[in-house]
Amino acid sequence: MIVVMQSKATEPDVDGVVRRIKDLGLKPHISRGEFRTIIGAIGDESLLRPEFFAGLAGVESVMPIMKPYKLASRDFHAEDTVLKIGPYQVGGPNLAVMAGPCSIETEEQLRQSARAVREAGGVFLRGGAFKPRTSPYSFQGLGEDGLKMLQAVGAEVGLPTVTEIVDVRDLDRVVRYADVLQVGARNMQNFRLLAEIGRLDKPVLLKRNPAATIEELLMSAEYVCSEGNQRVMLCERGVRGFDKETRYMLDLAAVPVLQGLTHLPVVVDPSHATGRRDLVAPMALAAVAAGAQAILVEVHPHPEKAMSDGPQQLRPEAFREMMAELATIAAAVGRKLQTPVALEPRP
Amino acid sequence: MIVVMQSKATEPDVDGVVRRIKDLGLKPHISRGEFRTIIGAIGDESLLRPEFFAGLAGVESVMPIMKPYKLASRDFHAEDTVLKIGPYQVGGPNLAVMAGPCSIETEEQLRQSARAVREAGGVFLRGGAFKPRTSPYSFQGLGEDGLKMLQAVGAEVGLPTVTEIVDVRDLDRVVRYADVLQVGARNMQNFRLLAEIGRLDKPVLLKRNPAATIEELLMSAEYVCSEGNQRVMLCERGVRGFDKETRYMLDLAAVPVLQGLTHLPVVVDPSHATGRRDLVAPMALAAVAAGAQAILVEVHPHPEKAMSDGPQQLRPEAFREMMAELATIAAAVGRKLQTPVALEPRP
Amino acid sequence: MIVVMQSKATEPDVDGVVRRIKDLGLKPHISRGEFRTIIGAIGDESLLRPEFFAGLAGVESVMPIMKPYKLASRDFHAEDTVLKIGPYQVGGPNLAVMAGPCSIETEEQLRQSARAVREAGGVFLRGGAFKPRTSPYSFQGLGEDGLKMLQAVGAEVGLPTVTEIVDVRDLDRVVRYADVLQVGARNMQNFRLLAEIGRLDKPVLLKRNPAATIEELLMSAEYVCSEGNQRVMLCERGVRGFDKETRYMLDLAAVPVLQGLTHLPVVVDPSHATGRRDLVAPMALAAVAAGAQAILVEVHPHPEKAMSDGPQQLRPEAFREMMAELATIAAAVGRKLQTPVALEPRP
Amino acid sequence: MIVVMQSKATEPDVDGVVRRIKDLGLKPHISRGEFRTIIGAIGDESLLRPEFFAGLAGVESVMPIMKPYKLASRDFHAEDTVLKIGPYQVGGPNLAVMAGPCSIETEEQLRQSARAVREAGGVFLRGGAFKPRTSPYSFQGLGEDGLKMLQAVGAEVGLPTVTEIVDVRDLDRVVRYADVLQVGARNMQNFRLLAEIGRLDKPVLLKRNPAATIEELLMSAEYVCSEGNQRVMLCERGVRGFDKETRYMLDLAAVPVLQGLTHLPVVVDPSHATGRRDLVAPMALAAVAAGAQAILVEVHPHPEKAMSDGPQQLRPEAFREMMAELATIAAAVGRKLQTPVALEPRP
Repeated sequence: MIVVMQSKATEPDVDGVVRRIKDLGLKPHISRGEFRTIIGAIGDESLLRPEFFAGLAGVESVMPIMKPYKLASRDFHAEDTVLKIGPYQVGGPNLAVMAGPCSIETEEQLRQSARAVREAGGVFLRGGAFKPRTSPYSFQGLGEDGLKMLQAVGAEVGLPTVTEIVDVRDLDRVVRYADVLQVGARNMQNFRLLAEIGRLDKPVLLKRNPAATIEELLMSAEYVCSEGNQRVMLCERGVRGFDKETRYMLDLAAVPVLQGLTHLPVVVDPSHATGRRDLVAPMALAAVAAGAQAILVEVHPHPEKAMSDGPQQLRPEAFREMMAELATIAAAVGRKLQTPVALEPRP
Repeated sequence: MIVVMQSKATEPDVDGVVRRIKDLGLKPHISRGEFRTIIGAIGDESLLRPEFFAGLAGVESVMPIMKPYKLASRDFHAEDTVLKIGPYQVGGPNLAVMAGPCSIETEEQLRQSARAVREAGGVFLRGGAFKPRTSPYSFQGLGEDGLKMLQAVGAEVGLPTVTEIVDVRDLDRVVRYADVLQVGARNMQNFRLLAEIGRLDKPVLLKRNPAATIEELLMSAEYVCSEGNQRVMLCERGVRGFDKETRYMLDLAAVPVLQGLTHLPVVVDPSHATGRRDLVAPMALAAVAAGAQAILVEVHPHPEKAMSDGPQQLRPEAFREMMAELATIAAAVGRKLQTPVALEPRP
Repeated sequence: MIVVMQSKATEPDVDGVVRRIKDLGLKPHISRGEFRTIIGAIGDESLLRPEFFAGLAGVESVMPIMKPYKLASRDFHAEDTVLKIGPYQVGGPNLAVMAGPCSIETEEQLRQSARAVREAGGVFLRGGAFKPRTSPYSFQGLGEDGLKMLQAVGAEVGLPTVTEIVDVRDLDRVVRYADVLQVGARNMQNFRLLAEIGRLDKPVLLKRNPAATIEELLMSAEYVCSEGNQRVMLCERGVRGFDKETRYMLDLAAVPVLQGLTHLPVVVDPSHATGRRDLVAPMALAAVAAGAQAILVEVHPHPEKAMSDGPQQLRPEAFREMMAELATIAAAVGRKLQTPVALEPRP
Repeated sequence: MIVVMQSKATEPDVDGVVRRIKDLGLKPHISRGEFRTIIGAIGDESLLRPEFFAGLAGVESVMPIMKPYKLASRDFHAEDTVLKIGPYQVGGPNLAVMAGPCSIETEEQLRQSARAVREAGGVFLRGGAFKPRTSPYSFQGLGEDGLKMLQAVGAEVGLPTVTEIVDVRDLDRVVRYADVLQVGARNMQNFRLLAEIGRLDKPVLLKRNPAATIEELLMSAEYVCSEGNQRVMLCERGVRGFDKETRYMLDLAAVPVLQGLTHLPVVVDPSHATGRRDLVAPMALAAVAAGAQAILVEVHPHPEKAMSDGPQQLRPEAFREMMAELATIAAAVGRKLQTPVALEPRP
């Protein structure tokens, strides 16, 4: 950590910083320039917070040198993490497509979606049972009934399931019925929920909050990892932008940026990012070209009747077309789409 | 709600929209322009969601006419809501200042803060017992011990207390010890928590998420109100901005915008918005000039030793100076600062 | 255009709006709902501005139905515009890669860059002679000397040239020496410059300002088109974002969004968008997957010695690798990279 | 400047950075930590650019210690700059209000506005003759005729005039007719225009671009100052935000931030920032409470007929009310509104 002193900082100010560094068990290193004195703190920066210095007299700014996360950092874990979930992988050489309806509405609707997903080559079934909705008057999901349908239909089509957890009190139920826990964008900094999930042995799909920096996303992953659960996938799903044409602004550069900083797999959700059906396929293709390790999209047999997010859900035939294109793009970057294994009852 | 059809929309497309409107029990109203056909849905728009139409063939865009919130709207409740909390008010003619340390660290630290707050004229004591921290390695708060200290010290100095709730499972405890529940920016769309709080008879301070639009903040207030609890204050505390000079970007125009849209009181937190001690007083003054009904600031006896947010906490003497200036500004806009009532044991 | 009246609007207020619509030669269409009266203006909306109504008594909001641009709109020109520049095309089925150094520094540096570009398959040579630099103390470009070098080297390697125009007074010189005029992000709303360029018969590469909406970009294109010059390419080069990892935030969804709204070709510049060499190739690949019709990248023989934007310029070998990958991705989406035609003196 | 090396940087990498520092005439200062080597460059940082190092092998990041601007910096000019313009001041203890119509439409309209401004206590008359309009089909201003009206009416009411310059070729004319040159938000990085203005002896009102950081605004001021003209005022007028309720997001914290970084006076324009008449007064009051040294607002005798920005222009009576409130707020922060001096023909 580097502490830059104000131009008018006094010797006692410098001493104050030096003393604080020593108190913390690190070694100070003073460098006096023409205009500024700069003090480095040498040693294990993970013991430090900028706020230990920012409040001291004469301090102009504090610059961390090390990343504030450790378990999520590629510095400490150079190899890509590969999550094994059922017969599939996320983070390995081959791409995983996760798809299904935004909300589980009926068993029949879920079944139709699931079959469309499997037939087109998707390898995870997503579906929301607990829905975080902006309006209290909107459909809030089927709850546990939805979870049961998800489990049943997932088993039927032989695909691992992904569903969102919105309340820490639902954790037992969601863990019982689903294979992957999704932490939605709005709960990315629900730190208690993250900590609880960190104590489970269950893969997590952690979505970036629309206001979160990439570093904040990694810090949230660190919450999960630091409790023991390293099975974390990070999902870019659009940040808050100023353009009215799309719902959020998809930050695709986050894909290679994240892959440089972390060993955890990176997933892209073009459906929520854009909010527009016609943009889902181009953005999914772009995400794969940029290196995403999995894609999460919404598929609904009748989007015009969907109880949530109708405008962004793909019809089965559009999903099928997109999958064909994705396979071509994946090949172009030297990868393959994983495909569903032959159906047999899951244990 | 107005549905704008694409220029190439066909008669069957128009019929599809008309049918959907009728199915929903509303009256369609077709207007054929030179370039576009437009269809209005007349009746109770609260029955409608844009997504009921956005997925239909031939639809270009859907424009709501009514606001999606009702109980929080000034359309349905023209008079300002005034919350009475102990002997103080939030939302009435006179300004309330809420202050205290970011985190409760020790009973002594809290007591010193509380006395400084009361002596300078603050009328609510804030203090965090459960801290939502970006890093899992940062101080997470004293938990229930902190709540007990808050209750004890609040009683001692005769000020109602405000504290953050970060986990729905802590609700009983927080309700038992504190007078006002704060829902932090990161939980603004933790809808389950909002719904639970909506079933209580306890005032709530609801902070705007850095990525939230003003409408989304009002929708979150609607979650609380729709469960029965109308005692909601809305707090602007900075949105995500692009400038590195401040932590967030304080959106002060949100104060008069909110006051036009809602009857609920509006609070401004200049400490979290700016993250810089030297900006707290100017932004607090500006907030009052803009019409804020309460101000929430952080005060710490020794910010340089604070376990969280040291750089933005005011020292007692700086807080005192700010309070004197706030009183002058309040007078300039025809208002007064509420002052602490004489000390006696609270019931 | 639709005018929504306030709930408390009076009959005279409604009459005022109706009168204004008639005065403008359009037909009013009144629709009285339960909560709001809505007035449509039927006829040629291009005669209207929202501000004609927004100032009238009783008006709550004004919603345009038509786009505010016409010549740039796909509504009025359904087919893709294909620009023919020398033997190459921008906007047709095959992809064009434009590359070269950020700044022209010496003839030798430009020549090395140009050869690297041509050898790897680039078909336009870019190079800055007039540099818009944030700091007055930074290198400002070689000016006319640079233009001469660009013309000479462009002829030598047989590639059309692209260079930025930053001052309307330089227009004659830039037109004389270069094949494509680039209007930089900072001049996207230098409307006088746009109008002057609109009176030329010269292709223009118009870059999106980091604060500009997609609609504002199209309005700037409309400035050029409305003066007679329809040879406009639109370039996405990153908008202002909040994440410190990249210089700007590349808005790749803008590519398909623009292609839906306009017939003009869409170019992506991953170099300026990210500011990081390691992100240029992934974002270029993603851009092609998303449908971009041309890519603009920076190539420098010795980026570590570059006088501007060193960190984002590709070395020749990295450019070569990227071109190979781009060719594969282009093929995956059914397109090809254009390649340099055999060298012979240009007319 | 501090260069942080990658954890895997080699000794030759470190040597490369050291050599580059020495080549630039500065002194390297190496500090080897447990995880990273850090190299400081000691001496006159104004000789350095981050890009001199960012391209070198083994470099992770480069952190400047000094500000990149000098003449605009308070470090080099501790006292507030006070601009004297006619009998008025901007930057001194007393507040200046600048007001007038968005566009000059007719001499009569301008005269009515000007009288309203003077009668209510405004001391500068603003009015646009060259209008930068998003649409080529919108009113573009009266040009030189407008300038003549501005000069005539300004003399009539005895107020110095402010008008926007949008094209470097108009400089002579604008300088001849007006007292203060306004550089609009869209031209904040039109560096050639800034440099030309820097060679004049004429006060400049430089508006912040909606995508510009505070540092970029100061760099643009530096362009003007570095050519010799130190008479620069900086104007906050809203940055690009994501909320649809206001046109831009007014960044009021920029006022005290700027005042800490620079000696130049700070102006706030609440009209363009919000785009809504009802928000102008609250934001003007807030700006003064935050310390703004001048306020720029739009006043029009008949905003409902205005040819530009009708929704945000104040009627004379609303302006009068706002001025009374501003006077009270100014007094509350120990300042006064400057008032028009007795009328006599200006030289």
